[in-house]
Amino acid sequence: MNRRNFIKNTTVLGAGALILPNSIFSRSTMLRKKVRLGFIGVGFRGQNHLNEMVKRNDVEIVALADPDKRMMASALEIIHTSTNGTCETYVAGDYGYRKLLARKDIDAVFVSSPWSWHYRHGTEAMQAGKIVAMEVCGAMSLEECYGYVKTYEETKVPIMIMENVCYRRDVMAILNMVKKGLFGELIHGQGGYEHDLRGVLFNDGETAYNSGVEYGERGFSEAKWRTEHYIQRNGELYPTHGIGPLANMFGLNRGNRMMYLQSMSSKSLGLHKYILEHEKGGELHPNASISFSQGDIVTTQIKCANGETLMLTHDTSLQRPYNLGFRIQGTEGIWQDFGWGNNEQGLIYFEKKMDHDHRWRNTKEWLEKYDHPLWKRHARSAEKSGHGGMDYFVDNAFIECIKNDIEFPLDVYDLASWYSITPLSEKSIREGGAPQNIPDFTNGQWRQRSNLFGNSNKF
Amino acid sequence: MNRRNFIKNTTVLGAGALILPNSIFSRSTMLRKKVRLGFIGVGFRGQNHLNEMVKRNDVEIVALADPDKRMMASALEIIHTSTNGTCETYVAGDYGYRKLLARKDIDAVFVSSPWSWHYRHGTEAMQAGKIVAMEVCGAMSLEECYGYVKTYEETKVPIMIMENVCYRRDVMAILNMVKKGLFGELIHGQGGYEHDLRGVLFNDGETAYNSGVEYGERGFSEAKWRTEHYIQRNGELYPTHGIGPLANMFGLNRGNRMMYLQSMSSKSLGLHKYILEHEKGGELHPNASISFSQGDIVTTQIKCANGETLMLTHDTSLQRPYNLGFRIQGTEGIWQDFGWGNNEQGLIYFEKKMDHDHRWRNTKEWLEKYDHPLWKRHARSAEKSGHGGMDYFVDNAFIECIKNDIEFPLDVYDLASWYSITPLSEKSIREGGAPQNIPDFTNGQWRQRSNLFGNSNKF
Repeated sequence: MNRRNFIKNTTVLGAGALILPNSIFSRSTMLRKKVRLGFIGVGFRGQNHLNEMVKRNDVEIVALADPDKRMMASALEIIHTSTNGTCETYVAGDYGYRKLLARKDIDAVFVSSPWSWHYRHGTEAMQAGKIVAMEVCGAMSLEECYGYVKTYEETKVPIMIMENVCYRRDVMAILNMVKKGLFGELIHGQGGYEHDLRGVLFNDGETAYNSGVEYGERGFSEAKWRTEHYIQRNGELYPTHGIGPLANMFGLNRGNRMMYLQSMSSKSLGLHKYILEHEKGGELHPNASISFSQGDIVTTQIKCANGETLMLTHDTSLQRPYNLGFRIQGTEGIWQDFGWGNNEQGLIYFEKKMDHDHRWRNTKEWLEKYDHPLWKRHARSAEKSGHGGMDYFVDNAFIECIKNDIEFPLDVYDLASWYSITPLSEKSIREGGAPQNIPDFTNGQWRQRSNLFGNSNKF
Repeated sequence: MNRRNFIKNTTVLGAGALILPNSIFSRSTMLRKKVRLGFIGVGFRGQNHLNEMVKRNDVEIVALADPDKRMMASALEIIHTSTNGTCETYVAGDYGYRKLLARKDIDAVFVSSPWSWHYRHGTEAMQAGKIVAMEVCGAMSLEECYGYVKTYEETKVPIMIMENVCYRRDVMAILNMVKKGLFGELIHGQGGYEHDLRGVLFNDGETAYNSGVEYGERGFSEAKWRTEHYIQRNGELYPTHGIGPLANMFGLNRGNRMMYLQSMSSKSLGLHKYILEHEKGGELHPNASISFSQGDIVTTQIKCANGETLMLTHDTSLQRPYNLGFRIQGTEGIWQDFGWGNNEQGLIYFEKKMDHDHRWRNTKEWLEKYDHPLWKRHARSAEKSGHGGMDYFVDNAFIECIKNDIEFPLDVYDLASWYSITPLSEKSIREGGAPQNIPDFTNGQWRQRSNLFGNSNKF
């Protein structure tokens, strides 16, 4: 991996920031043996990360912050049963995390909080000198995206966008094939988030999935906060599972970039219908009168600087099989995915390797043949990790980059540009489909920046 | 089928139009036993129609017009070998077809000419009182679309848009399922034209497919004229194979309509690369210096009056398997196609019929179960017809509607709106993705118009 050679000086820190004990991702020769961790947000997603971390002997879990006492109890359970260790907890109020950030014995934090808190948690962590593992979502506003970049450039504290689908086994095999030139020059990509979340957005306030039609204060877990976005907003609310893998293949922010997008939204029927038809819902349930702004299907077209087109689909309010719908198409090959990453859940075609016969092949043989070196090496370690092993890789990369003082493969510029798709798509829809320019958060550096993701077989 | 009750008077004809021998699609009780046919354009597509017509005993092939002598010879071959019949031919110059149109012994014409001739052939035929079977393409301009409607409304001579994919067996089975409510309320549809046409757009001037890198005057068949569109234009050049089937399912112009669209185009690499790599091409071939405007992938988002979204993909310059990429998604079901209409080339999911298990099923069983009555009845007749039998159905519908004095299921308003996607997508791309309003060619009648397609098991 290339070291970050444009960061020369780690002493230029923002107001209120701590001086870092070691220069991070600079040419420091002091490598960490153990990374001291804090967790902001220990709901189910934060607990996924905790489960990864408690397996490791190169981290120390110092403190957890979350105002949700039930989630905190579950998180402590993980720590106690897995490590017999203990750690400090901050559960008092929404701003308890600030006490965690004020500690001097924490190197890095995982942020797995509700979307509207990401910005505060992420930027305040950087300002406090804590390296950030930032969970995925879309930004609440374009200003947030600029703010992440500004905070990073002022503090030089790195932040990694934790997009686990970048590490999906089939996605990495395809990336491997893209890098080896099997697809020729890339022309078009598709991806998205096509996942029936109705049973996540509503529950009975006690158990997380498919258990009722409550949300907000009466809901549990994601239903507590995620559903409100579907009432208030209409856009590509969750762009990163789609754009992350595409970004690595198309070199976004690294030799290429997104120039503009245009979005379109269908009507909204799925969530209302779910409430009506649920055995605990029905026409007389108070939530039957809620009006949802979020269209059931939101599609977003994106034009890239090098002339390629990308397409994202947000599809989470209707019955459907899970399917991120990836498509990678170049001058020499095409891949179409319709599943959750199993090797046989896709179609592929390379005319020169297939007698120009114009017939799809199943992906299995190809994905096995081009299995990414990282997966070959770590498949066993990843076996019991979340989301089919993807979580092992994204978390491992975060820790290993810190330990080895190496630049994150997915950084603040990736975070800002991917997150920006959300407010820009909302604006495009509000304006009847008008195209929206996507800012160049790298300020011209995209031309020189190297594509780091998946270059190593170590992490 | 409903009769066309809004056409009361067939005597209001445009200037220069002939008085029709019988009122067409009025409440005439004089049904035709034999339809007297002319053909304008007898290239390969016109010959497909000829092959269908020579099998029938309810038509009489009166005359053919085409300036291409080689194609005319092939067309006459079909007539002579199949029927021992003979017919008049018009091969002198581009305007020979006008002599055909001036004849009084022709009821209807098939127009299968190069795209830029459709408008003249179609509107002049209507003005001459000849019922028109119009082949598919996109319009050269929005004005043409208005012109078709104006000519029809002045002459009252019907024109049918001959979109054969509407009659694809899997497409009609899905339509059957949509009408039976299996998909619930529709939300989103996709389709397109994803067909590697490189070997069609270039040849050696003698044989049609994959034989060289010539086009225009030095090319043969479609390479003679179609390729020039890829040099001059950039848009959704061929929208009807995608929008036709979607139109029938979403009720476009019949209770619903397209409101606006926004298009995006990728860079153009495929055709240039084809010329470079072809054994008869190479860097030194004069055609290696041609610059193609048409992007390899053009995607078009369409918003409908009833809130649904549609997506079309034009993808004809790259290596790929044939795949129209249909997707039909409603509140209760989803279908995804990835082939050319075989029953097993698709995935489907209905949660209520599949234990809410979030798993795709292969389409085979479902498409067989819901096989459309029209296919059940006519499958044997269609067996040897072009494009997997679709051509039998579209041509049969045209002839039977005329014979039975029944309104065409796909009419001038469908033609105009589908064709309009092309110039509007070109304009959207020229304007950096700006949304374009799609005119209501029905002038408000879309609210009352009935959806006729596929309602009968007769034709």
